[in-house]
Amino acid sequence: MSSTATTTLLPATVAPSGETVPPQPERVKVALCQLEVGQDKAANVAAARRAVRDAVQRSGAQLVILPEMWNCPYSNDSFAPYSERVPDVGARVGDVSEAESPSVAMMAREAAALGVVLVGGSVPERVAAADGGEQPQSNPPRLHNTCCVFERDGTLVAKHRKTHLFDIDIPGEMTFRESDTLTPGGSATLVDTSAGRLGVGVCYDLRFPELALLYARRGASLLVYPGAFNAVTGPLHWELLARARAVDAQCYVAACSPSRVPGAGYQAWGHSCVVGPFAEVVAAARGDAPETVVAELEYAQVGERRRNLPLWAQRRGDLYELVDKGEGK
Amino acid sequence: MSSTATTTLLPATVAPSGETVPPQPERVKVALCQLEVGQDKAANVAAARRAVRDAVQRSGAQLVILPEMWNCPYSNDSFAPYSERVPDVGARVGDVSEAESPSVAMMAREAAALGVVLVGGSVPERVAAADGGEQPQSNPPRLHNTCCVFERDGTLVAKHRKTHLFDIDIPGEMTFRESDTLTPGGSATLVDTSAGRLGVGVCYDLRFPELALLYARRGASLLVYPGAFNAVTGPLHWELLARARAVDAQCYVAACSPSRVPGAGYQAWGHSCVVGPFAEVVAAARGDAPETVVAELEYAQVGERRRNLPLWAQRRGDLYELVDKGEGK
Repeated sequence: MSSTATTTLLPATVAPSGETVPPQPERVKVALCQLEVGQDKAANVAAARRAVRDAVQRSGAQLVILPEMWNCPYSNDSFAPYSERVPDVGARVGDVSEAESPSVAMMAREAAALGVVLVGGSVPERVAAADGGEQPQSNPPRLHNTCCVFERDGTLVAKHRKTHLFDIDIPGEMTFRESDTLTPGGSATLVDTSAGRLGVGVCYDLRFPELALLYARRGASLLVYPGAFNAVTGPLHWELLARARAVDAQCYVAACSPSRVPGAGYQAWGHSCVVGPFAEVVAAARGDAPETVVAELEYAQVGERRRNLPLWAQRRGDLYELVDKGEGK
Repeated sequence: MSSTATTTLLPATVAPSGETVPPQPERVKVALCQLEVGQDKAANVAAARRAVRDAVQRSGAQLVILPEMWNCPYSNDSFAPYSERVPDVGARVGDVSEAESPSVAMMAREAAALGVVLVGGSVPERVAAADGGEQPQSNPPRLHNTCCVFERDGTLVAKHRKTHLFDIDIPGEMTFRESDTLTPGGSATLVDTSAGRLGVGVCYDLRFPELALLYARRGASLLVYPGAFNAVTGPLHWELLARARAVDAQCYVAACSPSRVPGAGYQAWGHSCVVGPFAEVVAAARGDAPETVVAELEYAQVGERRRNLPLWAQRRGDLYELVDKGEGK
């Protein structure tokens, strides 16, 4: 059942940052699962598992992406009760406790069983004080909005904790404060996988061009943003921001949302999409209903667009400079 | 004939950079002249003059914007013969030589006669070596792609020399190298006018989010981009980039193009537009034909959107930092 597509590799390149980018696959078929997320966690896990399997079986996807908070209703009340411990990067399939972390365990298992890279949207991650939380033991555990990335052998190769929390206040339209319950992550996340060099952001991270530019400068081929925009900001901003990040960073962008659930407390925008490095929409969901979006990424286009418009060489380092403060960490 | 609209001022504010932004007008009516540019320089100047007068008389605009290279066909062969000397910032109407700089003189005169702020698109500026060009006297004069900004008394209050030159190579579709003839400017341009605090960029400058972010951090209410995108990049990128800069910088963006001239060597995209600080298109040309686009800017919305989504406070200075190397210059 594992993906049997042969993979031609593009030659290694040098990123604008000067670092060497390892050979990237020439083509990657990607599937974005615009899942319907409900109240029942076990049902959410089962539905996600089915969607991942279906996506791979039907499309031959080598890379599967899930939406933000796919195991959990999007609300501050839900993050703690739906949270799981997430092992450290490097954990292998057998290292993840099915009982303690059913969502994470399912993702690791399916990545390995199907032989695909899985960018696991996000789930609420619980970090006990004893696990390195900054609070004293008497305090409640820390919660993060965490995206896990699994290699096709099921190894957890990266986790991105949402670095910009969703705290907005549009009176009468949309008010939310993730920072009431969540703690932001402490680093950007660039990871080399068999599906390419990926830069990862979660939802509100998409609003900050600096993060995308740092990833691009370090040679990312694809930026992945699991995100749950809403019916207020989604229509104007969701596809716009995905395309803006793509055209500025000159790489592919995949933005994966949950579907809209009528009557739910938070109305997700849906409209998951894949954008190419010239800002062209390669594939998009028809709307906000459950759907799997499939696209083929051709990573040679990243290099080609960067040759067409050599923006990195054209930047004016004498006028401005974007400093990567996490570099070398 | 001068604009008689009374102006209510919003209170002074503090920009994210920490500097004080002087009181901004509550409302500004802006007109973008999507001019048809031909081979005859005198005819171009006369047409621009008529368009500016018409825009003010018909719409009561307090701010008028012209497109990139509005006195000159867009080609490397034309920039030198159509070029003019541009006086230093601070020059008053009478300081500009009608004979030597007919385009600049017309703009200064019309701004004063109509009592409007005029962002004069761009014209090719000629700088003799003796005027501070870096080349020895034996070398040809330096040429810039220069946007002049005039206050409503006709004073030249800023000039922005395009800082990122248009050097692109999309084989078979669009190849241009402005750097064959032009010299890039040496600074960003933020200017306080009676029509608000403006950040100025010319065309390809629009592709660099850093410039827009620097202007926004310093409290710009409106980013003005005269630009002549083309039939290759325009459809995918022109409005996208205008909206991207607006949503990231949370300010108004006005992007003013020449019209498309059938048969001309360079096919401009047209589609001039005004975008609000929530990325909404406030007004746009119907297409690529000559047209004047009018919109009313409500600068209170800039502050409101920045309160709704306090992106500046939410930036992660521990992970990245955009350094303004021109600050204090």
